[in-house]
Amino acid sequence: MVGAGQLARMTHQAAIALGQSLRILAGSPDDGAALVARDVVIGEHTSYPDLASFAAGCDVLTFDHEHVPTELIRKLAADGHAVHPSAEALRYAQDKRAMRERLAELAVPIPRWSPVSTVQDLAGFGERVGWPMILKAARGGYDGRGVWLLDSAADARLLLTSGVSLIAEERVPLVRELSALVARSPYGQGAAWPVVQTVQADGICVEVLAPAADLPAWRAAQAQALALRIAAELEVTGVLAVELFDTGRELLVNELAMRPHNSGHWTIEGALTSQFEQHLRAVLDYPLGATGLAAPAVAMANVLGGPAGGPGIDERVHYLMARWPEAKVHLYGKTIRPGRKVGHVTVLGTDPAAVRARATAAARYLAGRDEP
Amino acid sequence: MVGAGQLARMTHQAAIALGQSLRILAGSPDDGAALVARDVVIGEHTSYPDLASFAAGCDVLTFDHEHVPTELIRKLAADGHAVHPSAEALRYAQDKRAMRERLAELAVPIPRWSPVSTVQDLAGFGERVGWPMILKAARGGYDGRGVWLLDSAADARLLLTSGVSLIAEERVPLVRELSALVARSPYGQGAAWPVVQTVQADGICVEVLAPAADLPAWRAAQAQALALRIAAELEVTGVLAVELFDTGRELLVNELAMRPHNSGHWTIEGALTSQFEQHLRAVLDYPLGATGLAAPAVAMANVLGGPAGGPGIDERVHYLMARWPEAKVHLYGKTIRPGRKVGHVTVLGTDPAAVRARATAAARYLAGRDEP
Repeated sequence: MVGAGQLARMTHQAAIALGQSLRILAGSPDDGAALVARDVVIGEHTSYPDLASFAAGCDVLTFDHEHVPTELIRKLAADGHAVHPSAEALRYAQDKRAMRERLAELAVPIPRWSPVSTVQDLAGFGERVGWPMILKAARGGYDGRGVWLLDSAADARLLLTSGVSLIAEERVPLVRELSALVARSPYGQGAAWPVVQTVQADGICVEVLAPAADLPAWRAAQAQALALRIAAELEVTGVLAVELFDTGRELLVNELAMRPHNSGHWTIEGALTSQFEQHLRAVLDYPLGATGLAAPAVAMANVLGGPAGGPGIDERVHYLMARWPEAKVHLYGKTIRPGRKVGHVTVLGTDPAAVRARATAAARYLAGRDEP
Repeated sequence: MVGAGQLARMTHQAAIALGQSLRILAGSPDDGAALVARDVVIGEHTSYPDLASFAAGCDVLTFDHEHVPTELIRKLAADGHAVHPSAEALRYAQDKRAMRERLAELAVPIPRWSPVSTVQDLAGFGERVGWPMILKAARGGYDGRGVWLLDSAADARLLLTSGVSLIAEERVPLVRELSALVARSPYGQGAAWPVVQTVQADGICVEVLAPAADLPAWRAAQAQALALRIAAELEVTGVLAVELFDTGRELLVNELAMRPHNSGHWTIEGALTSQFEQHLRAVLDYPLGATGLAAPAVAMANVLGGPAGGPGIDERVHYLMARWPEAKVHLYGKTIRPGRKVGHVTVLGTDPAAVRARATAAARYLAGRDEP
């Protein structure tokens, strides 16, 4: 796995059960996954020599992020390395413009959008979809970075001269956000988890609720079928997360991720097969695992670092475990900084409101954002 | 953790979620846990210099087996290392004679037994309890090793002259075997999982069924209370497995293990807190986690290597995953040899007979013991 963040860290946990040993390309020996795996190679994911020497001896290469340049992934494949997902699939997760063009071709419902390179482009698009609108960098954004809410075309004047490839998008009047998580193997087998609701704050996912409440069965099945169709059409291998806007009338595709995704962390305890195990099964071309829920209601809350000060993390873990003995804690081996995603907490149960309240209270306390 | 077998391997998986990094003392870099952890020290668990240099910098020392000599554990503690469980507790898991003497003092029900050192001792004990009877090495046995079924005192003549400390035990007319798994923290908190049935073949555990079927609630509570009392009286820290004979009229304690135990592997998916996470919580003196079942019925079957030949393990894993997509596979990173415990399979569900049949069929197929 190229990249050594929490996704690689949790994939390594899953690999151990399968009798596999995950080799990890890490930028630093202190990266979350590098702290816990035996087979760690230090190198740059933007350097072809580093990637090629890392790949030597690997059965399959996969990724914990979208930041490896497409042309290097192509070259790895051309040099005989098995790469899943392929560069051809990954580019739709790397480039928001390419993704929207492709999904439009496939008649997948998406928000109205347009590539923009001048203030005039932006003003013209704004006349069609109204203000405020969304401006996004086509490449490299995540967790709210590379996304701007604009009240007028003039607001973007500086950005438009920065040379960054940009797209504008209507601000969809959404009721909530959903995520349809699926996996697809090179053989072509697909598997879909129950559709979940994701709750964002400041552009960052803070809670995931499984299954999404009050989602009619036909609508959930439609979202799963859509995600499986996208996976098949784009020839995705591994996990695909399809982030959706629920407008109350329809579902629109917002973003794609082709790797284990924050909206799937709940599957570690909450589903029969976790997204991390499933990603490994998919990229290794094993048959996929069952995706049913392990409990009627599952809630996952991210641990986002709060203000400095207060009790240390060890004391907080003690308190959390005493107060919420049923909470499942996942820490990523990172030092806490304000806003940094350093872990998550999952709670299983029968009452959606109760598990959500417990997961969120536990995560906020652990992050130092709330006192007990 | 001293020792690098599958117990350390699975404890490492649990440590990752807790934001911990498990340091492992391994006899060989190819040991199951050494294959997957970053912080591996190669050394002998019977060498004090190796143990002491391993322990330097560890917060707490714990064990994946009972083979570290008691006097070395005492010396580690005397030299200022935190050791859980302590030598004083562990000696009851290391020495079957000391364990039986102590449990007898505590009025814990155990089979009739006697230390024996001569054919006359054995013949005299046989007159009291009848033949056949069981002879056990006081130290060092596991998985059926160090245990003999005797038809007469003369059968043991050679063993009795070997210098090995031996105990004789009545052959209990048992209906089945149970296991009461608990954990205890240094602070004194205790937690008990549901009592399970263990199924043995040739002295080796082949299946674990959770919860034990047809066990009256009062009897299960009695077994849990007994295990918690033993943990408290012996000042055990970490996981304690109390293996029990169910005679249909009463429960008798057979053996103790003070570490994660084969009878608790089902807890990885089948309980809210796995025995591996709980062992870490206990030895680190964190509050203990909830121990409830994750499904009404859970079955675990060991993968015990079958005869050589047939499809390779990778092909077998493919087949297993295709046929039993709900089965959870755990492989220990060992090469398969006949009879060797190389992994386990867990299945969750609602019908005890169905989950047992699926887990056992999957494990036997994976081991190369059955064709599809």
